[in-house]
Formats: sequence, C-alpha cells, structure tokens
Amino acid sequence: MRMIDIIEKKRDKQELTRQELEYFVEGYTKGKIEDYQASALIMAIYLNGMTNQEITNLTLAMAYSGEVLDLSTLGEIIVDKHSTGGVGDKVSLILLPLVSSLGVLVAKMSGRGLGFTGGTVDKLESIPGYQTQVSMQQMIQNVKKIGISMISQTLNLAPADKKMYALRDSISAVESIPLIASSIMSKKIASGAQKIVLDVTVGKGAFMKQLEEARKLANTMIEIGKLAKRETVCVLSNMNEPLGYAVGNCLEVIEAVEFLKGNMPEDVKQVVLELGSQMIKLAGNGDDLEENKRNMLENIENGKAYQKFLQLIENQGGDISYIENLEKLPKAKLVEAVYSKNDGYIQEINSKEIGKIAGKLGAGRDRKEDSIDPSVGIVLGKKVGDKIKQGEVLAYVHANSESKLKEAKKSLEEIIKISSSSVEKEKVVLEMIK
Amino acid sequence: MRMIDIIEKKRDKQELTRQELEYFVEGYTKGKIEDYQASALIMAIYLNGMTNQEITNLTLAMAYSGEVLDLSTLGEIIVDKHSTGGVGDKVSLILLPLVSSLGVLVAKMSGRGLGFTGGTVDKLESIPGYQTQVSMQQMIQNVKKIGISMISQTLNLAPADKKMYALRDSISAVESIPLIASSIMSKKIASGAQKIVLDVTVGKGAFMKQLEEARKLANTMIEIGKLAKRETVCVLSNMNEPLGYAVGNCLEVIEAVEFLKGNMPEDVKQVVLELGSQMIKLAGNGDDLEENKRNMLENIENGKAYQKFLQLIENQGGDISYIENLEKLPKAKLVEAVYSKNDGYIQEINSKEIGKIAGKLGAGRDRKEDSIDPSVGIVLGKKVGDKIKQGEVLAYVHANSESKLKEAKKSLEEIIKISSSSVEKEKVVLEMIK
Repeated sequence: MRMIDIIEKKRDKQELTRQELEYFVEGYTKGKIEDYQASALIMAIYLNGMTNQEITNLTLAMAYSGEVLDLSTLGEIIVDKHSTGGVGDKVSLILLPLVSSLGVLVAKMSGRGLGFTGGTVDKLESIPGYQTQVSMQQMIQNVKKIGISMISQTLNLAPADKKMYALRDSISAVESIPLIASSIMSKKIASGAQKIVLDVTVGKGAFMKQLEEARKLANTMIEIGKLAKRETVCVLSNMNEPLGYAVGNCLEVIEAVEFLKGNMPEDVKQVVLELGSQMIKLAGNGDDLEENKRNMLENIENGKAYQKFLQLIENQGGDISYIENLEKLPKAKLVEAVYSKNDGYIQEINSKEIGKIAGKLGAGRDRKEDSIDPSVGIVLGKKVGDKIKQGEVLAYVHANSESKLKEAKKSLEEIIKISSSSVEKEKVVLEMIK
Repeated sequence: MRMIDIIEKKRDKQELTRQELEYFVEGYTKGKIEDYQASALIMAIYLNGMTNQEITNLTLAMAYSGEVLDLSTLGEIIVDKHSTGGVGDKVSLILLPLVSSLGVLVAKMSGRGLGFTGGTVDKLESIPGYQTQVSMQQMIQNVKKIGISMISQTLNLAPADKKMYALRDSISAVESIPLIASSIMSKKIASGAQKIVLDVTVGKGAFMKQLEEARKLANTMIEIGKLAKRETVCVLSNMNEPLGYAVGNCLEVIEAVEFLKGNMPEDVKQVVLELGSQMIKLAGNGDDLEENKRNMLENIENGKAYQKFLQLIENQGGDISYIENLEKLPKAKLVEAVYSKNDGYIQEINSKEIGKIAGKLGAGRDRKEDSIDPSVGIVLGKKVGDKIKQGEVLAYVHANSESKLKEAKKSLEEIIKISSSSVEKEKVVLEMIK
C-alpha cells in the first residue's frame, strides 16, 4: 500500500477502505508517513468529504492508535458525556454527580481546557486536595466503591487525533464535519464509552456557529455511533450567551454547588435535565425521559445529588470543607461591578467575547504548559431577555490586577448590549437527535 | 501575511492576489514555508482550480524565483519552442536549425530527459565534442555569430517550480491544468522567451491523454501568455504512436539528420512544418503560414537547413565528421529485428509502451544523476495504418545486452498490434490554438 495512492483516491472522490485508513493513521502516528502527505490527504478529505463508513473507519483507527481504556470489569454499561465546548459550561460538574445519585455509573476522564477558560479538570483542581491524576485501576476502584470517579485524562488516548489536530490547525482544515466528528468520537471510544451522550453546542461561543452545521455534525456522530456499535444521542444546545451566570474556574464550582443545592439558573437546568434524562435512559435506568427528569429534580431537592458530589470530592482526596463553606475557595483580590447606564432589556451577551475577557483575566490558557488562575472570572448580573434598570449590575469582574480589572470592565460595557424594546429569551435546548 | 490564511482562501474557492501568490512562492522557495502547508495549498488548488489571473501571477512568481535569462542584447524577438513531451520526439533537432536557416534567431536552452528517453541535450551530447554546458554570454555570442545556439539549461531557472514539482509528485497532485500550465510557462519566461510556440502532445505517450484536456491546457497557457505579455501559440499533436520511426538518442539524431537531408517521415514532417510556420510568423519573418511551410521545404531541398545544422554543431565544438558520416556515431553491439507473424495492417504502436522498452534498454534515466546509453533504442519498421506481410520487419531493437535484447523483442511482439482489416492513419496535427 502506498500513501500516494490513498491521496489520489480521495482526491478523485473515491471511498477509502478500512485498510487504507488504518494504514494512514498508523503510519502517520508512528512518523512513517510525512506531514506533507498527511496534509494533502486531509485537505482532500476537507474538500471532498467522506462517507459515514469512511468516517467510522477513520474514527476507529484513531481510537486504537494509542491506549484504550477497558472498563469491562465494571460489569455494567458505561455512558459517557461530552460537550463540543462553550463558555460557562459547568454541566459535567453538576450532571455527573446528579445521574450518579440515580445509580448511573460514571467513569469520566476529562481534559484540561485550552482556550478562554479551564476544563472540568481545572475546575475540580481548584478544590484543595482533589486528585485528578490517578491510575486507571484507582479510578475503577473508585467507581466500584461509590459509583463515580472524575479524573484527568492521563492515558495516551488517540495520539493520532492529537497529531492530526495539530496539523489541521496549521493548514486551515479544522472546520470539517468528518474530521471533527472522528476526532470527538475517537477519544470517546478510546476512553471506554459504550454509550455516548453529546452536548453539541451551537452559536457565538461554540465551534458550530449555525444550527444546520451542528445538525450535520450531530447526525454524523450518531452514524459513527451506529456503525461502531456505540449508541449515541446528541442534544443541540444554545451557546450564544454563556451558560448560567459564572465564567471562571472557582466561580463555576460555586455555581455548580449552588445548583446541586437547588439554586438552578434556568438555562443550566434545561441542559442538565435534557442530557441527564438521556444518560439515565442509555444506562438502562429508566426509559421515560420525563420521569427521569422528575427523579433528577427530586434528588436535587432531597439533597442526594449534593451528597453524591461531596462523596466524590472526598473519595478523590478533596477537602469537602471548601464545598461546605464556599467562602474558603480561592478568591480574587479585586471584585467590582459594571453597571447599566440605561433602562432596557439585555439584547446580547456574546459568549465568545465573554470567554475572551475571562481568558485575559487569567482563567484560561493558550498553551498546555501555562498555569491558570482559579479565582478570576466574570459573574453576570443578568441574562439575555432580562429587564434592566439604569444603575443595576450588568456583571461582576473578579480580577487579580488593577489593569486587567479596568480592561475587563471596559470590554464588558461594550459587549453587553441593551435594547430599549423588549427582547425574547432564546431557546436553550434546541433539538435532540438520536 | 500568513500562509494559513492563504490556504483558507483557496480552500474556500476565493481568488488569491498577486501578493499572496508571491508570498507563497518566495517563502516556499526559501524554505520559510513548510512542505505541509505548501502541500495543503497545492491540493486545494488541484481541487478548486484557479482563475487565469491567478495562474498568471503564480507563473510569474515562479519565473522570477531564480535566475532569469536576459536576451535583450540580441535586439530581436526571441521565439522559444517547447513540447509537453513524447516518445521519439526529435522535433527540436530538426526544427530549430531549419527555422534558423530562414533567419529566425534561436537561443535554446533544453533540459536533460527524465523518463523513458533522453532530452534534446542528451541527443546533442551523443555527437562527440558538442558543448552543451556553456555560459550565457557564450550562448549569446554564438547566436550573434551564426543565428543559433542550443545548449543545456545551466541557469538556476524557476527553482520554485522544481521544488513544487517534486512535492506535487509525492502527493498525487501532478495532473492539474493550472499547475502544469504555470510550471511550463514559468520556465519559458525565465529562459527569456518573448514569444512561445508550444507543441502540446495528446495521446497514449503524452502527458495529456485526452484531446479535451489538452485543449484546456493549451487555452490556459495562451491566456497566461496574453496576461504576461508573451504571445503564445499552441499546436496540438498526436502522440498515440511514437513520432517518426526512431526512439533512442543516437538513433533519433540519425533520423533528424536524414530529415534535414530530405528523408522526411510524414508525421514528423507535418509537426515540424506546423510548428515552424508558427515560429517564423511570431518572429516577424513571414505572416503567410503556407508560404512559410514552402520556404522550409525549399531550405530542406536546397541543403540550407542541413548546412545550418552542421554550422550549429561546429560552432558548439562538435565534430561534424560524425554527422557527415553517421556510421561513426556510437552503435549498439546487438541489432535484431522483430518480424510479423501475420499479414494485416498495423493497428496500434502504443508510444508509452515503446518508451518503456527504450528506457529498459538504457535510453532513458530514472534519476537526474543516472547516465544514459546513447546507442540503444528501437527503430520501427512500420507505422500505424501501414500494410504488413508475414515475415516483414515490425521493428529493430538496438541493444547492448543479450537479456535486454530478448526482453525488448518479446515486449515489442506484444505491443505492436496487427489487424486483419485495414486501419486508417490517425491525424498528426490535431489543432492549432492561439
């Protein structure tokens, strides 16, 4: 087999075989195929597309290019949850203890965030003592003991994906449905998921800006799931404004804890209930989605979800006194409000722009080796559609430097747009596709 | 300017500016842009195409990526001739002395052949003493003295083209009209041509297999010529069977000399007259194409063309006794005939296959540093459409090893196809486009 023939086939819009895709993925991962040949193939895939069978074969080849987590000793169906990313996305922190409190096994490996704000692991690490770097045996032990473990991605999962993503990034070949879908699904399969619930975010702060594109991505991942025998459900959710009110690591932990105690921002609630009801169903713990949602709300109300969260923290070595007394969590030195200059209605809070401000405050990282500041961020005072009066708080800035504080306040004044006429709230859960 | 943005534009089917194409060509030639980015751009060009303005800007950027020959001291219009390649193509050896004998200035740099058989320079070098490696000043002196010089391409012409061609070859991106057209035209412009006559070969032994593709290539090069102010004329010629009878370096020199003495194979004659009449017209030496052809035939008959050829050889240091007595030229040790087993008509002599056989005999080279054997090759006994009787000679093999002789004879028996019913001769000059 020769790489040049594989490139030619895809260039000429022919379907690549499983063997050809495996040859490429294995050769490229091992450095036997050069970047410039991979680059030509990737551009040809970008422009000529792939069939669902090709995407599935690519996904599986990538999934098996490195270590694969074997969760079979847990003896039950493992449902994984993944989001295509957003701003203020603390859903995993809430959702996973919540479904765990209803008997769904959770063995979750998360990444560190790259970009505006931290990832789930960064947020968990803002709780003193919490161990994210544990062995796979330890994680499986933890799940066996209390039904849930959330840790950092320590295995060398899907190295082909890492290498291909870096290349795509340098040749303007990121925004391709076959390549995005195979990238996401390969990591899920490598991390041992048998069933998958995907939160496909859409809008200004998401990877997919348009509903139509998000639908295509969702349908492609569902097809991969079918062909690869990993049942997959997609929830399309709105990411035009940040999810909830808090953006920043500690600030999001606080919002998550508050949620589990019953203080639920409406948009976060809708997304959590939708994703959770699907997870419970896929896990075989309840076919009636509405009943699943009612059970989730009940476990919020009776405190079981919050208790499960505390149990998780404790079991991973975290100090639960920081949760029981949220005041103890790392705090920014400077907290100041931005006030509305007019009466009116909140028209737009561009989540991408909010993410950028949080990033500049220190909540995110550009490179893997950068450290993040867990304490800084933004807490919105209002959401899109809310009525606002002159002098009311638009948002609070949590900063650790005067200059960054000043810059963030100025940016927020520009970004949060106010209309004199009333503005309708946007739908949060846009669609469910399976 | 960033390469990644240039890739994105072409990926999205937008037109690249002159500045963007210059940035790419210069950066890539100097090694500032990596192969993998160039590779992605080239694949995007292959799949999304280019406008004529883009192709022209790419051509000019490539032409000026290295040395450019300045022929202005010759004070007259320099018309260059180029062929897209074929098997048995001895046209330059005949045509250039011929038009020179009619007052057209010829300052020709040729390449060495890569592939089945040698190039014009290899053929000239089979004449003892002929100096192909001369300085540009020396070449210009030679043209001033006798009106013609034919030498090897010693300048570093269009290095961008060399680098891009090697990359295209390794990523299945050779057969692209914009990339082929800019590759050819950039070298012609760098070699100082003000007007250009192109022999675009079509058929089994040519780069372009189909007439429609050849037409597209011709039209593209003519458009580049217009936009770059280098008037260009294309002659489309048939390359299904080899041109003339001889394939191999010395063997082709002999056929060329015989032609100049009046022994003209019909197909070679048609191509030479068509290209020559166009060259004479572009040089401003005669607007009437038919009259130009008559003048050419006259100079064959009166010996002026042959005398010009001898003058060229002598002026470049060659020993004309080898031309005056062709028996002195290098000879293969073994010459054997392949005979027809049937009566009938020659139906097919696939020129690509003939080229391969000649290559295996030693007439060509795979790598630039390989040496070639000037003496070996094939001389056909018949051409397509000719009647043949059992026992008549189909072809002679000139070889320097028994095993290669045997192999070549066996291949020729398979390749030369004979039909029991009569076969029409194919058109040689297919079209003229300007």
